[in-house]
Amino acid sequence: MANALLDDRGLAFVLHDVLDAGSLARLPHFADHGRETFDAWIDLCRRFARDVLYPSYRPLDAEPPVLRDGAVRVHPALREIWPRLCGLGVIAAARPFEAGGQQLPATIALAANLYLMAGNLSAYGFAGLTSGAAHLLEAFGSASLRQRWLAPMHEGRSAGTMALTEPQAGSSLADVRTRATPAGDHFLLSGSKIFISGGDQDLTENVVHMVLARVDGAPPGTKGVSLFLVPKLRPTADGGLEPNDVRVPGLIHKIGWRGIPSVILALGEAGDCHGWLLGEPGRGLPHMFQMMNEARIMVGGNGVATASVAYLESLAYARERPQGRPLADRDPLSPQVPIVEHADVRRMLLRQKAIVEGGLALVLHAALQSDLAAHAATPEARRRARLLLDLLTPVAKSFPAEKGFESNALAVQIHGGYGYSSEYLVEAWLRDQKLNSIHEGTSGIQGMDLLGRKVMAEGGAALAILGEEIEAACARADRAGVDPSWTAGLRRAAADVGALTVELAGRGLAGGPEALLLHSSDYLDLFSTVVVAWMWLLQAAAARECLAAGRGGPDLLEGKLCAAGYWLRFELPRIGPLVAACRDGEDSHARVRPEWL
Amino acid sequence: MANALLDDRGLAFVLHDVLDAGSLARLPHFADHGRETFDAWIDLCRRFARDVLYPSYRPLDAEPPVLRDGAVRVHPALREIWPRLCGLGVIAAARPFEAGGQQLPATIALAANLYLMAGNLSAYGFAGLTSGAAHLLEAFGSASLRQRWLAPMHEGRSAGTMALTEPQAGSSLADVRTRATPAGDHFLLSGSKIFISGGDQDLTENVVHMVLARVDGAPPGTKGVSLFLVPKLRPTADGGLEPNDVRVPGLIHKIGWRGIPSVILALGEAGDCHGWLLGEPGRGLPHMFQMMNEARIMVGGNGVATASVAYLESLAYARERPQGRPLADRDPLSPQVPIVEHADVRRMLLRQKAIVEGGLALVLHAALQSDLAAHAATPEARRRARLLLDLLTPVAKSFPAEKGFESNALAVQIHGGYGYSSEYLVEAWLRDQKLNSIHEGTSGIQGMDLLGRKVMAEGGAALAILGEEIEAACARADRAGVDPSWTAGLRRAAADVGALTVELAGRGLAGGPEALLLHSSDYLDLFSTVVVAWMWLLQAAAARECLAAGRGGPDLLEGKLCAAGYWLRFELPRIGPLVAACRDGEDSHARVRPEWL
Repeated sequence: MANALLDDRGLAFVLHDVLDAGSLARLPHFADHGRETFDAWIDLCRRFARDVLYPSYRPLDAEPPVLRDGAVRVHPALREIWPRLCGLGVIAAARPFEAGGQQLPATIALAANLYLMAGNLSAYGFAGLTSGAAHLLEAFGSASLRQRWLAPMHEGRSAGTMALTEPQAGSSLADVRTRATPAGDHFLLSGSKIFISGGDQDLTENVVHMVLARVDGAPPGTKGVSLFLVPKLRPTADGGLEPNDVRVPGLIHKIGWRGIPSVILALGEAGDCHGWLLGEPGRGLPHMFQMMNEARIMVGGNGVATASVAYLESLAYARERPQGRPLADRDPLSPQVPIVEHADVRRMLLRQKAIVEGGLALVLHAALQSDLAAHAATPEARRRARLLLDLLTPVAKSFPAEKGFESNALAVQIHGGYGYSSEYLVEAWLRDQKLNSIHEGTSGIQGMDLLGRKVMAEGGAALAILGEEIEAACARADRAGVDPSWTAGLRRAAADVGALTVELAGRGLAGGPEALLLHSSDYLDLFSTVVVAWMWLLQAAAARECLAAGRGGPDLLEGKLCAAGYWLRFELPRIGPLVAACRDGEDSHARVRPEWL
Repeated sequence: MANALLDDRGLAFVLHDVLDAGSLARLPHFADHGRETFDAWIDLCRRFARDVLYPSYRPLDAEPPVLRDGAVRVHPALREIWPRLCGLGVIAAARPFEAGGQQLPATIALAANLYLMAGNLSAYGFAGLTSGAAHLLEAFGSASLRQRWLAPMHEGRSAGTMALTEPQAGSSLADVRTRATPAGDHFLLSGSKIFISGGDQDLTENVVHMVLARVDGAPPGTKGVSLFLVPKLRPTADGGLEPNDVRVPGLIHKIGWRGIPSVILALGEAGDCHGWLLGEPGRGLPHMFQMMNEARIMVGGNGVATASVAYLESLAYARERPQGRPLADRDPLSPQVPIVEHADVRRMLLRQKAIVEGGLALVLHAALQSDLAAHAATPEARRRARLLLDLLTPVAKSFPAEKGFESNALAVQIHGGYGYSSEYLVEAWLRDQKLNSIHEGTSGIQGMDLLGRKVMAEGGAALAILGEEIEAACARADRAGVDPSWTAGLRRAAADVGALTVELAGRGLAGGPEALLLHSSDYLDLFSTVVVAWMWLLQAAAARECLAAGRGGPDLLEGKLCAAGYWLRFELPRIGPLVAACRDGEDSHARVRPEWL
């Protein structure tokens, strides 16, 4: 049986029984939609992912893009896949009708995209990047720029990229050096960018780069950075296209995501690279960051999808592979049992399930907040959703990457020696997963964002809202008859996080950012465990509701209750020592001098 | 500066200041040795590792062996390396003079081998496997078999392999099916083996396989398994060699350890594969397991070495790579600082250091017990060392693999986007490391071995000895002036493990092995954390002693104290929730049914 990529019933359970995503259709913005159009869209993408994307995964991984005569050539299979993927309408699915989209909720678009990601992360990557770049253009481009570029991007004739990173400025965008010199209606760009995913390929007639650069005379630091649209080919007076002095001097040989190129871009080596300002000068970073929630939730989706496909692969393997006997069976003539019968293998499978399905609920919940932040009925509801979205984004970005990597390693482990060979796919997903803790802000940066900005914003307003949401989930679980010890555990953990945060805020006031952020990575870790425990309690509540109502398959629901119990009873208590370490200021890593290492 | 592979001063500190390995020379068996010969041997291997092995790492990883015309061809660089490696005397370094060895302690041999492993795991692998196979032959071979095969193996003219695994019998050796039919002085073998490392190559004139097989009519299960010596080429009457019907139908394409082939072996397809019994019939597994401590400590060494070389690589990178500014520095014109200045990067480095150097002390301590188990002055001292060795082996095997994988992932993370490319070596070591949790008994099997056998053996005698050793370490630390809270923490943790073990033993008596082993992986995890905390307390004590005596570099010693504090204050308390989970019988993974997953 082919890999299902995601569990269909599980996804429907999270979307509808847990999150009630169908109710989005009652908001005016989504009034043309309903559960049927949501389901139809997901089903369309799901089938494409299974029938077209997944079969291409191994060939794309085996034959990464090459650079020949200054141009990147991707795997030939993509030439067939790309127009079909774009033809579905994936790129603009969540954009409004007037921008050429289908005006679907981001929640539904993400749910569908998860299949595409799980089927082939790289192939989807071209679309995801184009989608993000087009959204930037839609938000900040002038009418003429939008008129010129938006439709080709939405239709997949022009791909889009995000060109932020430079060799000397990875995480430190304040140090971007690419220059932009005014030249009439446009600017002349010059500089070097690196790690530009999809930065060149032979799939589309053009590539549109969203470039961070510094206008001549702009102040140093982040305030001097502006955002530009820089196409690979620029329009000519007669309506054609001509080269725009964007060269690809090199390719990065990545260890995963091997279907999509990561390139070095040389802009304006001949002094003839035209760029057009997007939004306000000096506001490049705020503009870019306005889209950051979206981009980071997409990375969270990548992590969930990559962990999901590997989990299902190892589950199928464990059900089929005979090896050994039950511990109490001493008869060597009895037949070997499938390894899923061994408790320690089930431990690894259950841990994967808890990570995958906890992460799934998390990223969909975050996407739901983004829909509500934009389209909820009242300003207060929108504000609440926006604060919650901002707070959850670093968690939704990093949890699937960090725990997903552990989950992907377990999928290899379950395959034993076979998992260590490239005959099986689990090792490839392990490689793919590693990128998600690095790109779009490393996990370390997510920790600083969470503790330094998000929980501190507006006097802790977001954390208060999270507390209310968790309490609402606990009340729902109590009503549904979920084990009261689970609910009590989550309430206690939420209170611990609240108290810890107040204490750390006080330290920050007294000792500055170094004191506040001493344990930001540990804080992110424990915070994420609590947030995912909340997601699991919601799933347990929904499972109990379904069981009581006689809805849904019992295997699905019992599995949800079992995984919820695992997370709430086994994983959640593990925050205890982390909270204590943050609290007692254990500071070995801050004290250690480079020469002691 | 080239990668140092291991920290020389740190190794000397662990060997001499912590473990007093020099005193081994006072035992009669090692009387021809002294600190000078120990140091000279380590230095010889260290230089070979740095000058010859390490420069070959990347080429070997890039061009794995191929199977051509039924024969495996390894990387041509190995043809130059192999005779030089063997010429050093690496294979028999720890074997007695009368067997052609140098009679060095296993502790010193391992210390030297760590450099070879860190320099090039695969290249060393051929020697390590040959060493293990030759030891089996030395222990169980008849005089004529030893006479025939031992010298060629020790000299590296014949390589050795361990041929246990079969396609249907990975972890379950009771299910070995390879047959051995008596035929005069030898047996005719027939069957299929898989994942045989170094199972064929074009480096040596011959290959000697140690094969598990079942004599015709032998009982089913483990009791019917015998051990055979099966050469690739067998001796002819006129003193030559002829093919022995050992075919290589396929190669496994491994994701790491890519310099050494992993092959499928077809034995006796033409009914003409000769094998010679080693030891007693039906005792194949006990014989093999008599060498298992050695083999598993070697795997632990692989893990430590692979984590060490990556740690040093990421440390050098962090010291050189400028990126960003201190959190409190708001001036964008100030120069960027090396990333080692960022606390969160130091956190990742310190964690790696704690894992690498904690693991280093652990594997050397285990090797020291193996020397004492064989050669200590009194039977009681030998018994004590053997019990401790047996107890520590599953920890020494699995801790470097499991935490080493995390450590290797951190080395990638510190490199950021560059770490995700194959231009840098950190990703290759991450791939290499993954095997160590799989081969020579998976981590799951180590957990069952520890809890099901080792701590229960002889009425808990080994655990009692461990308790005494930990108490002795605490007393030493108290005398040396180590922070009393660290000592108190370790005493408390050791007591917790003791009490937990008694409780689990009681459950095993009442509920059988499934009840005993419900949390065997978690038990292994927490037990390992405590054992490594013991190793760190010993290092802290030794560091304080050296500081008081004005011996050793202050940077080394302060670094040791800092890492010890990290492990004892940050990591050790994390066993709390694991102990609680084992104790309260949290059993989601045992209850979950395959159809719920």
